[in-house]
Amino acid sequence: MKLSSKNLESRLDTIYDAIIVGGGMGGLSAAIYLARYGLTCLIVEKGRGRSLWMQDVRNYVGLDPETPGRDVLNQSTKQAIEWGADHLRGYVEDVTDEGETFAVKVKVGRKDSTYPVFHSKYLIAASGIMDNLPKTDDMQNVYDYAGYTLHVCMICDGYDMWDQKAVLIAGTEGQINAAFVMNWFTPYISVLTHGLVEVSDEMKAKLASFGYPLYEQKIAKFHGENHKLNGVELEDGTMVEATTGLVNMGSVYHNHYLKDIEGLAWNGENLETNDMCKTSHDRIFALGDLKQGLNQVSVAVADGTLAATQIWRNTRRAAEPRKWEENIVA
Amino acid sequence: MKLSSKNLESRLDTIYDAIIVGGGMGGLSAAIYLARYGLTCLIVEKGRGRSLWMQDVRNYVGLDPETPGRDVLNQSTKQAIEWGADHLRGYVEDVTDEGETFAVKVKVGRKDSTYPVFHSKYLIAASGIMDNLPKTDDMQNVYDYAGYTLHVCMICDGYDMWDQKAVLIAGTEGQINAAFVMNWFTPYISVLTHGLVEVSDEMKAKLASFGYPLYEQKIAKFHGENHKLNGVELEDGTMVEATTGLVNMGSVYHNHYLKDIEGLAWNGENLETNDMCKTSHDRIFALGDLKQGLNQVSVAVADGTLAATQIWRNTRRAAEPRKWEENIVA
Repeated sequence: MKLSSKNLESRLDTIYDAIIVGGGMGGLSAAIYLARYGLTCLIVEKGRGRSLWMQDVRNYVGLDPETPGRDVLNQSTKQAIEWGADHLRGYVEDVTDEGETFAVKVKVGRKDSTYPVFHSKYLIAASGIMDNLPKTDDMQNVYDYAGYTLHVCMICDGYDMWDQKAVLIAGTEGQINAAFVMNWFTPYISVLTHGLVEVSDEMKAKLASFGYPLYEQKIAKFHGENHKLNGVELEDGTMVEATTGLVNMGSVYHNHYLKDIEGLAWNGENLETNDMCKTSHDRIFALGDLKQGLNQVSVAVADGTLAATQIWRNTRRAAEPRKWEENIVA
Repeated sequence: MKLSSKNLESRLDTIYDAIIVGGGMGGLSAAIYLARYGLTCLIVEKGRGRSLWMQDVRNYVGLDPETPGRDVLNQSTKQAIEWGADHLRGYVEDVTDEGETFAVKVKVGRKDSTYPVFHSKYLIAASGIMDNLPKTDDMQNVYDYAGYTLHVCMICDGYDMWDQKAVLIAGTEGQINAAFVMNWFTPYISVLTHGLVEVSDEMKAKLASFGYPLYEQKIAKFHGENHKLNGVELEDGTMVEATTGLVNMGSVYHNHYLKDIEGLAWNGENLETNDMCKTSHDRIFALGDLKQGLNQVSVAVADGTLAATQIWRNTRRAAEPRKWEENIVA
């Protein structure tokens, strides 16, 4: 059922089998599987996740390569709800481990917000990451290209940069190193630091030895039309010619609600998980970009399958097996 | 490029980056990723794989739940070829490890077969399994229901059996144990052994205690219409009422071509793999149903992503990095 501030009251006494934080590709896969296992779940989706930015999902079996991420999310959300999952637009503020259950406090509504608390036996952390983009005076100008010809994932979109003039936008010296992987796809790389990096002499020399120009000024404006980049203007008026680019400025991890929970093993901002996506906490699973490994749609979708299946196995094994009563002869 | 006996000659001198044995969900995912990494690959597809039998893929994010497996295979095969993969309809007879490369002998054409040999640096085993079905005098009668209301995967289709009268068709005593998992979805289970099992007294007592009737006669005919089962007729004329069923008779593994290769670690018929789907042989990867783990479309698709990415990483690290030559000042 689609929940909102108007009808969520009816679910405040429910103990869900699982609450899924994040209704992206991984979370929806988990919801579809849980629903088809006959288990109850609530998806809490804050909106504006990484897959909503994908203008075309080009590398996922079964989709026409022009399919926008938005269509996939809509289709699978509808499907999960039809099979019995609950779905709420909201932001998970806090999770408390109550021993047998979790209490999940959700902010609902941007104005006059309410803070209902839902309960579940298992928690699936599928809230993913959000790529940092360069901050300029006109963010709409950045959004006009991000996800189109200005990419955030080399594995997904390197192919679409092949042998083109490209910018690499990095926010730390470490992130500049992506140039030496990106050159598999194109050697015509201009590195932009948007005024954020004190570039070492060693890095400068390495970039020069590869012939990759370095621009340390702030970015003023992306130029092009119809989401097709043709150059980047810097604050001093310099124009850097480029028809594509990669933003490699790190990500914001949506994992704040897990930080106070005891017993979780972290690797940086990623959660460590086993081969069924279980974290080191027996009732918490982590999917997709929140766990270690490749940040790919296909991986997140498989993760959802695995986590839901393990939760089903645990639940089934703890349940009373069903008999065909009328056939049993005492 | 689509290869056939008419044009494959042109590829006999090629050393592909990878040959993918099997053009199902996992193999196609690997091909799409390899092609987008700019690597060359040949998919060898024998046809009639497990996913071609799926009348609807209900649990895969992004697909309408009525989508037949066939549509997914066609869409993704087209996509892989468009991005540069080669695709050949044929049957892999034999693989020889030549040290740096593999020689892959393919049978092409059912009549007047030819046996071309292709070469690659890496091998991706994605040839999957084929479910055993009960053999009856009229196999078309079996095919009329298999993949529709007579299922082969409880994880995929248990939901569609909910609280219905169901048959469990098992070929060994061990396979009868599926009844005690299937009862999560329905307790109205009749167990059919199709004359193949010497059922122990212990199992008979257990089934009786659950109220699940056991029929040891051979199956004569499935009854119903429009692929919708309504009963199973046994050889002695007994009619077992059922609107759905699960065939749990094991599988044929398409892995014969790997059996003579040294250095592969097996677990039964499954290959052991690491978290990037690499087997214990550094140049052989295994995907989906051939490796250990859940046999699910989503898992196979993620596996293809992982294997292709590892092959790309290996290849990239061994390659000369590309410089922007005209910018280099000596």
